[in-house]
Amino acid sequence: MAVGPVPFPPMRPVAGIELGTACAGIKQQIRDDIVVVQMADQATIAAVFTRNAFCAAPVVVARENLTHNPRWLLINSGNANAGTGAQGMQDALTTCSDLASAVDGARQQVLPFSTGVIGEPLPVSKITAALPEAVGNLAADNWDKAARAIMTTDTVPKGVSVKCDIAGHSITLTGIAKGAGMIQPNMATLLAFIATDATISQTLLQQCLAQAVEQSFNRISVDGDTSTNDACVLMASACSALTITQDSAAYALFSEAVSTVCRQLAEAIVRDGEGATKLIRIVVKDALDNDEAVLVGKTIAHSPLVKTAFFASDPNWGRILAAVGRSGVENMAIDKINIYLGAVCIVKNGGRAPDYTEAAGQKVMREEEITVTVSMGRGDACQEVLTCDFSYDYVRINAEYRT
Amino acid sequence: MAVGPVPFPPMRPVAGIELGTACAGIKQQIRDDIVVVQMADQATIAAVFTRNAFCAAPVVVARENLTHNPRWLLINSGNANAGTGAQGMQDALTTCSDLASAVDGARQQVLPFSTGVIGEPLPVSKITAALPEAVGNLAADNWDKAARAIMTTDTVPKGVSVKCDIAGHSITLTGIAKGAGMIQPNMATLLAFIATDATISQTLLQQCLAQAVEQSFNRISVDGDTSTNDACVLMASACSALTITQDSAAYALFSEAVSTVCRQLAEAIVRDGEGATKLIRIVVKDALDNDEAVLVGKTIAHSPLVKTAFFASDPNWGRILAAVGRSGVENMAIDKINIYLGAVCIVKNGGRAPDYTEAAGQKVMREEEITVTVSMGRGDACQEVLTCDFSYDYVRINAEYRT
Repeated sequence: MAVGPVPFPPMRPVAGIELGTACAGIKQQIRDDIVVVQMADQATIAAVFTRNAFCAAPVVVARENLTHNPRWLLINSGNANAGTGAQGMQDALTTCSDLASAVDGARQQVLPFSTGVIGEPLPVSKITAALPEAVGNLAADNWDKAARAIMTTDTVPKGVSVKCDIAGHSITLTGIAKGAGMIQPNMATLLAFIATDATISQTLLQQCLAQAVEQSFNRISVDGDTSTNDACVLMASACSALTITQDSAAYALFSEAVSTVCRQLAEAIVRDGEGATKLIRIVVKDALDNDEAVLVGKTIAHSPLVKTAFFASDPNWGRILAAVGRSGVENMAIDKINIYLGAVCIVKNGGRAPDYTEAAGQKVMREEEITVTVSMGRGDACQEVLTCDFSYDYVRINAEYRT
Repeated sequence: MAVGPVPFPPMRPVAGIELGTACAGIKQQIRDDIVVVQMADQATIAAVFTRNAFCAAPVVVARENLTHNPRWLLINSGNANAGTGAQGMQDALTTCSDLASAVDGARQQVLPFSTGVIGEPLPVSKITAALPEAVGNLAADNWDKAARAIMTTDTVPKGVSVKCDIAGHSITLTGIAKGAGMIQPNMATLLAFIATDATISQTLLQQCLAQAVEQSFNRISVDGDTSTNDACVLMASACSALTITQDSAAYALFSEAVSTVCRQLAEAIVRDGEGATKLIRIVVKDALDNDEAVLVGKTIAHSPLVKTAFFASDPNWGRILAAVGRSGVENMAIDKINIYLGAVCIVKNGGRAPDYTEAAGQKVMREEEITVTVSMGRGDACQEVLTCDFSYDYVRINAEYRT
């Protein structure tokens, strides 16, 4: 179960974007597992992908086709089509061709996305057989169905939908994401698809997405494992009369709205992290620069010892201190470092805070959402990293099921 | 329970080295928890320490005193004296002074070592009170007692003792180590103490130790967490007539013997890794250089997804492939990479091996000791990293007990 209330919000349709789902029976025999997304002719699209060198075949194809004026996305869950060699590439291309035939488009205009088990051949014929149904279902109000169809070990669907007024226009931003394990996105999360009706050039849209992802999906970790299939897509259908240009005041507002959507989706992924019982917000401030702050934050976020202590609600803060110490930051000023659990100071000037009590630490550790603040005491940079705890269920999920 | 048979071997005394133990009641009320080691006057001593920036007070003191012709070691388990600020430094110095008084030496000739919980004040008076007993017990044949007294979450004591003939002389190398969690040594393991009766200069001894540690303790990982207290000490009592000089053939033989002892102790630590049920040997070969091989090996060794798959005996090899892919090696030649589980080829030229069968993978995964071999296909470098699996018991040990 995900940490905290994660209600699936009402998903506003985005003019110019239609989604259709179907059950191909890849791994699920009941639930839908493929999604087709169709964009208006004038839409622009931006995307960022995993930096894993063993990136999946669909990532290779989608990255290539991104420059060919894509109109359709084809997403499947249950199989990652990664580690599948030349056959995997051929399979990804075949599914793109099959969708292109069904919608009367070109193969290069389809971006494929896969998520699920690595190393198994993609069941192409099952996907092909289900395409007509998905295409037949294309509608603007299918965001909730799509959010469910892309789930793997996720326990809840993840979606965000906002309306914002920019320069006298009301625009919509609606997005979905999936992911629970193999989560330490490096340039993008597992899979996230966001759409808006704003009008914006591809270049500017890509810039906007890259900035938003850097501060959202790239600041979360469930287990430190970067997936082979991470991808985040931002579609702008240009159906709204609002045109966003680089220097406009509208750009700043639009960019902030995209960032907000990305942050909310990223947080939803951590809340649903495999086996998670707690949401841990790590704030590293007064750092020399952002890189230092992220390095310290991620070292804490990846420490199995810190994560099991949170699971146990044990204020074993020495583990946090040890993680800061091994983070690899050069010339760390130990005697300037303060660490807080919630509002409780646990480390003052590099040593145990004089007025710290176990009872005070214990009280914070029992909460379901905990903020750890590390002050590096030597600069102005501040960055936040989100993670979850490490429970028996993490081991169970990853030992008992093959995802 | 440790993986595989880890018999505690007969421990040969080393002429010129005496050990005494006692129960100070730091955390254990029954078992001995302090060790005093006394070296012959002419002995040389080398040591390497943790690179964790938050290194413990005893590490700071030991590093400093190493240059003051040390004659005694004072080791305690049950308390790390780390994250304890100025008081911790004072406490470490006080215990050194107290031992110096008891043995009629100088405070600077004592190297202190602590292991246990981080952030609690060191119970100095308990240690001081137990010193006379430990000093009174000093004897050459107390290696087994010392190995037990330094244990924390270890389930078995760890020792190695070898005799080797070099240049017509028979010399002895005997060593002990402790450690089960917070294990990703960076310059040394948690605590390891090795002694020999050879005659060798401090400079050469330090060089010899640094080389041995790099290929042993620095190539293991239980959970990726580098401790605040890691230290490895090599004492040479100069009681044997064998004098080892830099250019002698004896140096190569001696150096190899030290490496062998370090590798065996390091392997014993992984076998007793917290919650470990399997020993995983990761061999990365045909790499551009050693750094590349170690980077890939450690990325696999730290992946919670890989480690839980080993626990479950699940040949979910896609997780290994994903770990190789996210290791950060530049310009990886994906299509030249082969990966083996035991003797079974799972990845050939970057994709699933054509003749791989799940049954063959499953057979290897059921074994208690498994070798994963990654061929990077582009160089001559080869390095080995040892790790263990990730089980329910790892979570239990670190969630239920404060170590």
